[in-house]
Amino acid sequence: MIGKSQPRIDGVSKVRGTAMYTDDIRLPGMLVGKLLRSPHAHARVLHVDTSAAEALPGVKAVITGRDLPIAYGMLPVSQDEHALAVDVVRHVGEPVAAVAAMDERIASRALDLINVDYELLPAILDPSEALVRNDVKIQDRAVEANVERRVRLVFGDVEDGFRRAVHVRKDRFTKKGAGHASLEPHAAIASFTQDGLTLWTATQVPHYVHRTLARVLQMPMERIRVIKPTLGGGFGGKGEPMPLELVASALAVRCGRPVKITYDREEVFFTNRGRHAYTMELETGVTAEGLITAVRFSCLLDGGAYGSFGVVTLYYSGQLLTLPYHVPALEFQGARVFTNKPACGAQRGHGGVAPRFAFEVQLDRIASDLGLDPVEIRLRNQVRSGDVTINELKVTSCGFGECVEAAAEAVGWSRRRGRLPRGRGVGLAGGAYVSGAALPIYFNDMPHSNVVITADRDGGVTVLSGAADIGQGSDTMLALVAAEVLSLPMEAVRVVAADTGITPVDLGSYSSRVTFMAGNACRQAAEELRDKLFAGAAEKLGLAVEDLELRAGVIQKISAAEPAMSFGEAVAAAEGAGVPLTGVGGYRPPDLAGRYKGGGVGPSPAYSFGAHAAEVEVDELTGEVRVIRLAAAHDLGRALNPVAAEGQVEGAAVMGFGETLLEIHEVDGHGRLKASDFLEYKFPTSLDAPEVESLLVESNDPQGPFGAKEVGEGSLHPAIPAIINAVYDAAGVWIHDLPLQPHTVRAAISRGGS
Amino acid sequence: MIGKSQPRIDGVSKVRGTAMYTDDIRLPGMLVGKLLRSPHAHARVLHVDTSAAEALPGVKAVITGRDLPIAYGMLPVSQDEHALAVDVVRHVGEPVAAVAAMDERIASRALDLINVDYELLPAILDPSEALVRNDVKIQDRAVEANVERRVRLVFGDVEDGFRRAVHVRKDRFTKKGAGHASLEPHAAIASFTQDGLTLWTATQVPHYVHRTLARVLQMPMERIRVIKPTLGGGFGGKGEPMPLELVASALAVRCGRPVKITYDREEVFFTNRGRHAYTMELETGVTAEGLITAVRFSCLLDGGAYGSFGVVTLYYSGQLLTLPYHVPALEFQGARVFTNKPACGAQRGHGGVAPRFAFEVQLDRIASDLGLDPVEIRLRNQVRSGDVTINELKVTSCGFGECVEAAAEAVGWSRRRGRLPRGRGVGLAGGAYVSGAALPIYFNDMPHSNVVITADRDGGVTVLSGAADIGQGSDTMLALVAAEVLSLPMEAVRVVAADTGITPVDLGSYSSRVTFMAGNACRQAAEELRDKLFAGAAEKLGLAVEDLELRAGVIQKISAAEPAMSFGEAVAAAEGAGVPLTGVGGYRPPDLAGRYKGGGVGPSPAYSFGAHAAEVEVDELTGEVRVIRLAAAHDLGRALNPVAAEGQVEGAAVMGFGETLLEIHEVDGHGRLKASDFLEYKFPTSLDAPEVESLLVESNDPQGPFGAKEVGEGSLHPAIPAIINAVYDAAGVWIHDLPLQPHTVRAAISRGGS
Repeated sequence: MIGKSQPRIDGVSKVRGTAMYTDDIRLPGMLVGKLLRSPHAHARVLHVDTSAAEALPGVKAVITGRDLPIAYGMLPVSQDEHALAVDVVRHVGEPVAAVAAMDERIASRALDLINVDYELLPAILDPSEALVRNDVKIQDRAVEANVERRVRLVFGDVEDGFRRAVHVRKDRFTKKGAGHASLEPHAAIASFTQDGLTLWTATQVPHYVHRTLARVLQMPMERIRVIKPTLGGGFGGKGEPMPLELVASALAVRCGRPVKITYDREEVFFTNRGRHAYTMELETGVTAEGLITAVRFSCLLDGGAYGSFGVVTLYYSGQLLTLPYHVPALEFQGARVFTNKPACGAQRGHGGVAPRFAFEVQLDRIASDLGLDPVEIRLRNQVRSGDVTINELKVTSCGFGECVEAAAEAVGWSRRRGRLPRGRGVGLAGGAYVSGAALPIYFNDMPHSNVVITADRDGGVTVLSGAADIGQGSDTMLALVAAEVLSLPMEAVRVVAADTGITPVDLGSYSSRVTFMAGNACRQAAEELRDKLFAGAAEKLGLAVEDLELRAGVIQKISAAEPAMSFGEAVAAAEGAGVPLTGVGGYRPPDLAGRYKGGGVGPSPAYSFGAHAAEVEVDELTGEVRVIRLAAAHDLGRALNPVAAEGQVEGAAVMGFGETLLEIHEVDGHGRLKASDFLEYKFPTSLDAPEVESLLVESNDPQGPFGAKEVGEGSLHPAIPAIINAVYDAAGVWIHDLPLQPHTVRAAISRGGS
Repeated sequence: MIGKSQPRIDGVSKVRGTAMYTDDIRLPGMLVGKLLRSPHAHARVLHVDTSAAEALPGVKAVITGRDLPIAYGMLPVSQDEHALAVDVVRHVGEPVAAVAAMDERIASRALDLINVDYELLPAILDPSEALVRNDVKIQDRAVEANVERRVRLVFGDVEDGFRRAVHVRKDRFTKKGAGHASLEPHAAIASFTQDGLTLWTATQVPHYVHRTLARVLQMPMERIRVIKPTLGGGFGGKGEPMPLELVASALAVRCGRPVKITYDREEVFFTNRGRHAYTMELETGVTAEGLITAVRFSCLLDGGAYGSFGVVTLYYSGQLLTLPYHVPALEFQGARVFTNKPACGAQRGHGGVAPRFAFEVQLDRIASDLGLDPVEIRLRNQVRSGDVTINELKVTSCGFGECVEAAAEAVGWSRRRGRLPRGRGVGLAGGAYVSGAALPIYFNDMPHSNVVITADRDGGVTVLSGAADIGQGSDTMLALVAAEVLSLPMEAVRVVAADTGITPVDLGSYSSRVTFMAGNACRQAAEELRDKLFAGAAEKLGLAVEDLELRAGVIQKISAAEPAMSFGEAVAAAEGAGVPLTGVGGYRPPDLAGRYKGGGVGPSPAYSFGAHAAEVEVDELTGEVRVIRLAAAHDLGRALNPVAAEGQVEGAAVMGFGETLLEIHEVDGHGRLKASDFLEYKFPTSLDAPEVESLLVESNDPQGPFGAKEVGEGSLHPAIPAIINAVYDAAGVWIHDLPLQPHTVRAAISRGGS
């Protein structure tokens, strides 16, 4: 079944509208929770008077930061958040108090009745100001001024590299922040009874939410159950514990009744955790043949008010620069600063998007400087399977060259690049990404993914996995892997996932880890179950295990129709004590931790590669850019389910397209969101999206399940520079600032380029 | 923890109203289903015209019996039901057609628009008429006239027994039918998508519902998931697959949207499956000392229109007569007949209630005839641990004598029986019941109960069990057994039960089997988990397994504080491959099947015993009887959770009290329900109930988990005859017909007794 397109197991319920998202859940006696948010970008909270709100009939509880005093945060190094502000608010929209009430109308009225005394503090909204401004401290833990973290990594002999270069380019690039724009807003429902706290939440990381709830609520983990219902898009925006999860839980504990909180769209933008705004300087040296000799990269990340995933974002910004090209020497300097804005965090393609844009555009400029073909310079520098980069990224499999050729071929590169009519052009860019992080978010040596498969007498199997299907299709992937190993139809595999009360731990959906890690755990579990079935069947049939094969749900003598028994019969035969038959599997990354000398975040067990080619049309009068199509080649190791992989590539490419031309998450001079709804925040709908051609390249990773690597994130990276490089081919202008704005293009054209 | 009272793990959610019953569940896009029911007691369905209903806006589907043509039934011998009538309706209220619509109002209007042509057939409402009437066949499968089954069982030398008797009494008794009157009506929600059919249903038997759905819907079992939400009382009334479960499922498949059906109270009474009406003749011979020499018992059961559990009811009516007294010879003849009424089935104390009433009242009359004390005659005849009855019931443990003495003592028997003022009296009666059935409902040799316990890194454990908590507290029992074995607090044990998609098979809640069977499976699973923990801990601590003990969640060196590790640490140490640690357990009854020669239903692995003493006041003017109190002694083997066991005894005693004085499920001359709501159907509320004193007697059954046997059903039996016997003590009249009616008492008093 592997390699043949399978419909998603949750497809019909989503199409028919019967899928149960968090906000669809209604519990008896359920209250509505709402958050009061700060109107100020930076202020001291002097006093919160909740008495009038508490007195309002229908209000069941009002809480403030004092009720949830324990700080938390996604990374051990950045435990700097509170569910509700304690003493200080650091951005407009930060939650200050919360109510639980009989209905939404009463809850809203109660918020109006809460009186907060603020003492205004100076707000820092410009990241370069944050670098130097010592008189205002957004976070006490800043290492200097408002710098959360500075990183300097040096690999190889950078000076020597630049000395060897015959050509060196140094360019400056910027990219504004962007948001995830998941169609489903954040939502959580908490219920607290004698049997503990149950939280249904739209999260990518049930396990980390579980841990954070235990810590902040001071409740043992075994008293807490976190369940992820059907989820309507995450992209990183639901990748860490969120205030509503803690607040709904605290209110449920307080009231003894379930409490639901669903964010409205403005609240989602206040929550942010989206793409950081970047300012970058990139310097690259090459030989006369275009071979890279050294790279020097520095960047400033505008982190917003809290840490979130930001330290990882910063490290990834440097580390991932050594793929997909052979970079013999790299110097990376970066800083992430605090500003009085909603915090930035992880977003699809996390850490690699802006630097890749810079790198790939500069590489085209270098090719142009040297008179080389952009495809050629990429192929000359490509890494290959078996390479280990200067910063010790181990390339276990690599189809990058094939991706470049496939993407180029798809747009007729050789006959069309530089030869299309004025205003029309093609461009190409590459990329690479992690297939899961080798280190967990908190330090422990337990497996990152665990899967249990049970078979009972009904003839099917149940896969229990903590992995979170966030729309990317991981439940379908698990069903497929189990069905393949056990030779069952997909319909005979039931997947029960992301319920900490019954499914084994999985670290969650981030860093493109699920197919690689949960897929491997699932395969192992299915193989263990198969071995037990074979043992039972062999005994019953009077054959040796080696004489048996499993085919289309039947265990039979190899190459013979008889003797045979059905899957269900084999389960009964193997059940022994009659308990359900189980197979278990766990995945730990190979021991790469510690090999990486430069910092706290180790590399990935495998890397995906990709190259996109874009064809664009530029209206030279208005500067508007239309992307006609994207040919998106991606080395995903192995396409377990091609239609699903193609969907991931398409979605990522379209998201990259949106970040190239449209998306801006930023605040005005008072720290207020410029766009707080889907009227103002521009992102592509299906009508706006270019045609995307997914080109799947299979390099068969030796560690991946059936050879598979990631597909959903890395395939975003090349889309942006491919479009920008195509704009150059069409209009002769180089765009260094994202998103591309028509007036910039027009101005550059009138200046005669760049 | 065993033997100390523990609060129910679902107690708070039930008290606070946050527990999720089936009808509380709302799914996106959910439709409302409703059933059209026959107004006739017996008729041929000539034609069902659904066109007008289908045309009504908001109606999504209309189905009839032709859409669900496959027959089903609880017992393999009685597959005689259809979810919707096919060709013939056999009682008033039988479902004929069903609709799914946008809301309840539209669904009701649609029912009005369905036009059914009936050809009326003669209805048989009197069971004695059913015995002889050959011209009307309610069911083709009747063995003669309208007799579903005749049973004749003879054990020992009955003729010789009566010859040896110095005194023989022969009496006639009757009991009307009664209903379960669960506060929660039947409710079911079906959802059908690509990943199969999911049915949430208020059932006692998820596994049998699962099997029946597969058969009737012609769908593989692995495509079906049955989940029992919180349930508001079963008592046998939810102990078999019901039309609404099949109809909701069929409608959901048809519509592609979830469909909910909740019965109203009249529909619950139409569904019935309650206590059979009995006509009984009992003849008992005794020696001069009151020792029983032989028993001859015959009974006629009014079964209603379908088989349901009736064949079991009939066999139990005879088989259970040989406990709790030594009966050297028994002749049993019984018949169950079909009538044009809602079918009778299993109700708390199933099969034993009416015969026990007859036996215990007659025993008092015999004692009276011989001048023996009713307590004394019972003690002289009592069975004891180790006895095997003449019909091969093996008494593995018995505290019957102790129960009799405790109940008598509680009402001051020796100084008050026969000595209270006129109009006041005390009475006593005994009983016995099965602790689970040794045979499953369908023939297979798999365990009857399976339990899986998993421990993950959160420090707690999860118990996965198919057992159905129907309000009796089985979830709490499972938590307690696991907590005891694993030395954990109750709060650290999460119970996930009755979900065929994730929990291992358990046959369900009937025949008082759950504590005995699921309790044993749970204990075995917990012990296996504990062994794994000890092995892991021993290795980590550098000790031998034999040197370790588990105490209050800590594994430590025996009698030493050090070295030690917490439960969670031991789980991590034992996890090995890192998958969750699991323990599994299964319970199969000892191989008693086949030993029983008389019929298809074998005995139980253990028997509970009990004796109740009642104190009553009789108003001689009105004939009204007031039960002042019931002292209810019950040998439950071991009280795992005394407060829960006391609750069961109280509930059963009050239910017996209701059947003694109030409850009547019967139809009028047209086959229409006489009582179809809780205004007309009289049953005791908490305000009507007498004071009940639960007296727990522990005989420590060698096979039961920690010695436990059943408690919830057997403790109903003695309540009825104890009250009737007390009425004799108070007013000098013997009541042979249930329920006791004041005018009968008054008439008997004016006749001067009997």
